[in-house]
Amino acid sequence: MADTMNGFKRTHYCTDLNEGDIGREVIVAGWVQKARNLGNLMFVDLRDRTGILQLAFDDATDRAVFEKAEGLRAEYVVMAKGDVRAREAVNHDIPTGKIEIFVRELRIVGKAQTPPFEITDTTNVKEELRLRYRYLDLRRSEMQKALQLRHKIVKVARDYYDENGFLEIETPILIKSTPEGARDYLVPSRVHNGKFYALPQSPQLYKQLLMLSGFDRYMQIARCFRDEDLRADRQPEFTQIDLEMSFADEEDVMAVNEGFMKRVMKQVLDIDIQTPFRRIPYAEAMDRFGSDKPDTRFGLELTDLTDLLAGTEFKVFAGAVSEGGSVRAINVKGAASTLTRKEIDKLVEFVKTYKAKGLAYTRLTADGESSSYEKFLSEEEKNAIRARLDAQTGDVLLIVADAKNSVVYDALGALRCHLAERLGLIEKDTFDFLWVTDFPLFEYSEEEGRFMAKHHPFTMPKAEDISMVETDKEHCLARAYDMVMNGCEVGGGSVRINDPELQERMFRALGFTLEDAREKFGFLIDAYQYGAPPHSGMAFGLDRLVMLMLQKDSIRDVIAFPKVQNASELMSHCPDVVEPKALDELGIAVVHEETETPAE
Amino acid sequence: MADTMNGFKRTHYCTDLNEGDIGREVIVAGWVQKARNLGNLMFVDLRDRTGILQLAFDDATDRAVFEKAEGLRAEYVVMAKGDVRAREAVNHDIPTGKIEIFVRELRIVGKAQTPPFEITDTTNVKEELRLRYRYLDLRRSEMQKALQLRHKIVKVARDYYDENGFLEIETPILIKSTPEGARDYLVPSRVHNGKFYALPQSPQLYKQLLMLSGFDRYMQIARCFRDEDLRADRQPEFTQIDLEMSFADEEDVMAVNEGFMKRVMKQVLDIDIQTPFRRIPYAEAMDRFGSDKPDTRFGLELTDLTDLLAGTEFKVFAGAVSEGGSVRAINVKGAASTLTRKEIDKLVEFVKTYKAKGLAYTRLTADGESSSYEKFLSEEEKNAIRARLDAQTGDVLLIVADAKNSVVYDALGALRCHLAERLGLIEKDTFDFLWVTDFPLFEYSEEEGRFMAKHHPFTMPKAEDISMVETDKEHCLARAYDMVMNGCEVGGGSVRINDPELQERMFRALGFTLEDAREKFGFLIDAYQYGAPPHSGMAFGLDRLVMLMLQKDSIRDVIAFPKVQNASELMSHCPDVVEPKALDELGIAVVHEETETPAE
Repeated sequence: MADTMNGFKRTHYCTDLNEGDIGREVIVAGWVQKARNLGNLMFVDLRDRTGILQLAFDDATDRAVFEKAEGLRAEYVVMAKGDVRAREAVNHDIPTGKIEIFVRELRIVGKAQTPPFEITDTTNVKEELRLRYRYLDLRRSEMQKALQLRHKIVKVARDYYDENGFLEIETPILIKSTPEGARDYLVPSRVHNGKFYALPQSPQLYKQLLMLSGFDRYMQIARCFRDEDLRADRQPEFTQIDLEMSFADEEDVMAVNEGFMKRVMKQVLDIDIQTPFRRIPYAEAMDRFGSDKPDTRFGLELTDLTDLLAGTEFKVFAGAVSEGGSVRAINVKGAASTLTRKEIDKLVEFVKTYKAKGLAYTRLTADGESSSYEKFLSEEEKNAIRARLDAQTGDVLLIVADAKNSVVYDALGALRCHLAERLGLIEKDTFDFLWVTDFPLFEYSEEEGRFMAKHHPFTMPKAEDISMVETDKEHCLARAYDMVMNGCEVGGGSVRINDPELQERMFRALGFTLEDAREKFGFLIDAYQYGAPPHSGMAFGLDRLVMLMLQKDSIRDVIAFPKVQNASELMSHCPDVVEPKALDELGIAVVHEETETPAE
Repeated sequence: MADTMNGFKRTHYCTDLNEGDIGREVIVAGWVQKARNLGNLMFVDLRDRTGILQLAFDDATDRAVFEKAEGLRAEYVVMAKGDVRAREAVNHDIPTGKIEIFVRELRIVGKAQTPPFEITDTTNVKEELRLRYRYLDLRRSEMQKALQLRHKIVKVARDYYDENGFLEIETPILIKSTPEGARDYLVPSRVHNGKFYALPQSPQLYKQLLMLSGFDRYMQIARCFRDEDLRADRQPEFTQIDLEMSFADEEDVMAVNEGFMKRVMKQVLDIDIQTPFRRIPYAEAMDRFGSDKPDTRFGLELTDLTDLLAGTEFKVFAGAVSEGGSVRAINVKGAASTLTRKEIDKLVEFVKTYKAKGLAYTRLTADGESSSYEKFLSEEEKNAIRARLDAQTGDVLLIVADAKNSVVYDALGALRCHLAERLGLIEKDTFDFLWVTDFPLFEYSEEEGRFMAKHHPFTMPKAEDISMVETDKEHCLARAYDMVMNGCEVGGGSVRINDPELQERMFRALGFTLEDAREKFGFLIDAYQYGAPPHSGMAFGLDRLVMLMLQKDSIRDVIAFPKVQNASELMSHCPDVVEPKALDELGIAVVHEETETPAE
């Protein structure tokens, strides 16, 4: 059996100690990172959540203690009592590199089998194995640091919003499923067989109710759930910093949340950022960057060529123009030598993944010019394009034309980010914040064949567009805003409709009657009849915010126990089958089983 | 349509203002509590989350503004701009009673229908109606205060544990169902038809894993779920302050959590409490108070009479003794005049609800004595009982005898609390804290016909009892502890087993092999093989803690959107039926529907 710790109390974490402690008797505790036995000398790297500290054993060590130390293996858990002393061979790589503990008492409080992979940051085992043994993976200092910083970010958030008068109020996890909630997780009820709860996709309705209840400022770090095919950076459960403010408009919400970002960037990363953030209207963001979450750490802006090509005979461009689409370009300045024909071929493939049919190019090298499209254009058209793009020797012009503007935007928007990476245009450790504003209120759904709310049906139209809600949906703008950080949306929100009459008009504009709305949103429609204050709110995607702040590639690296692409957890193997008795009690039966387990 | 707030910004909450602000121009915002129209004068009580402030309109008020004010009705939402001035008729009941706002501009930003009940603390509508219109109920100052204090309690908790090195780490809500988890809520998977997630009854396994991962100190305010028939103070979802510490034993856990209680009582209620708390071993708690969560704010302790009645001929007592049970009494000092025969009859009924067959009594009034049992005893037995109970004139002796000790404890334990209430022995605003320690490790389950873990199978036995785990389960004690506040368990925890060998012995002692255990706990068994530190932890029931601190009668009064007894929510009507399409996608079907909806 292992030693007990009875009576033994740790006095310090590993990196609490430094040269100032030399001569002090201490007790430290942690895991054996590695043990080196040099015969008459032994050194053990002890690891705790703060870092590494060296334990030393030598000729002067009691034999029994020395022999015990000789039995140590990687990942054994030990407590050691001894004196801090200066180290002979200083290790400049670690904060405690000038000291060591000369051990006089050693307790092995937990033995360990050889782990399936070494616990180091340089481990390059497959993520699948790391996730299967997540409890070991989490021992790596990289994961330790990530979750410690996540804790700090969350703590700063709570402190900041508390100081600003926000109340943390818990909203339910077991809620009512909305008919719109196609991606709700459902929870069968044992007490009410045949009925189901849903898990919330967000606390949206409840936070609006809290405003109607007069809590004035609400904040919650809320778990949310979405049962959908997982994309790279989505988890079936995720966490939002969720907030709502009464008697407040977009200016108030933006100011308070800029304040938060300023605070958290300073306190966690020691980086000063400028506020207020730049604001870019949605239309401009699309036009210049092909994206509603533009990365403005680099140029490569889009240029619209459509008007220049109104009469062109080149079918590809002409077709796009005549069908109401557009022709847009990026001038990749001075990249002609880097972007060879072969490289450009790769870019063509790249834009195809965004549904572009192709990528027209012109390369202007010092040696000569080559173009995939200029030969099809009139001299006038060719020159007009070059002039508008300010084309110089050394430049590469890249053009996408499509009958759908959205395809042009998507393809070029993604292309410019791809090129920025490829050409090394993004400075490391730069944090670029901005707001995108003036979003469309409605969005036409081809699938549904009707206009739908782009955000949600409670979003307030811009004052000057209220009169057009019924008549000109395409041009109605919303009082909605997204916070964008380095080209990623980290948060978003809107001013809400608090006037039942206007809300009723919105429902009708969305194609349903008040009765339908009552069916869908039930009590919420009633609630707004009893005196609703003006209110506005916002939610941050916490996982993504942490990921971006820590410059990680995956949100799985900032979540203790994440799920993988197919929504399963590799460590515990969930979801899993359950006993028939459990289903009986719920009054349900499995009528369709997955035939093949997706790769785990 | 309602007025907009464009350009209008609230400058103060209602109770931010006082006499020092007289002459100041301010903008306030809130709900109309009541409006009094005296013809040429109008007063409006404006309510926000901080309290009430009077708006005044008089002869000097612009006519248009006055007329607008005349249109105000209860629960209208308004913003008002004006000057703070001294009030003629001071209202000493409210903090702002010496001032009022002389209004120059009034905006009605939200109109209201007549609410189904008046928004006052003195409202005595049925709880059912309050819950149906929870968003209105939450406007009452009582609910506002409760949730504001809950926010504060939670904030103090996070600050305190953060200062003490605890990391807040989120654990998953979608987890694996354990075969033991008979009360797990299950969540069918859309991606993996036929498989289910479970919602956690607590983050127990994950917090233990975090200790194995080296996070050292973990804290989370965690949502937990239990699908069971609801008792008065249970909710299907509830919140725990959950924590775990490595290289720490019961002394460390108790010290850090006593520190928390001291801090939170001081910062939230301004009450100083003494630490360390008294510790009462489980056996003593049962013996003296008939409860493992004794309320020690009053006396009325139990006295064991069993040994005095070994040879009695009175069948009721003799039967209890001979079958291994006991005879125990409470001497209700000086209560003879209050506890009349009629009152005692009620007490007899009371103990019957705890399965006691009866309640024997002796009343020693100044006028004479009466007893239900003394006539059946020998003079010696009678005197011995009186002597041990120190019976004096004016006392009432109450005795329960039963073949099961647990019945005697339950009945007298409940009776003493009932009597304390009845006789007014509990001083208001007293907060009494203690630890109950040395719990039994095992508990015999009549239902299962075997010994089961009283806490959970990871609980460490007391060092001196480890050798008896296989041989004398009945007398094994656990290193477990509960924190008790005013006779309610507010938290509990234990030292965990971190030695795989001992854990294996525990599993066997509980009647299952390591293979069974691996089946049940899977990866957790593996996890402990790779170096587990000693660790201990605790969890507080947050809802109950808040309820007790705020001296509320129901946890529903400290939860924003609670569910009722039958696990439904009255406002949104959940759980509810869902569309067949949704079930199709999950690969499940409803095979049994509740025939009758339980009363909502």
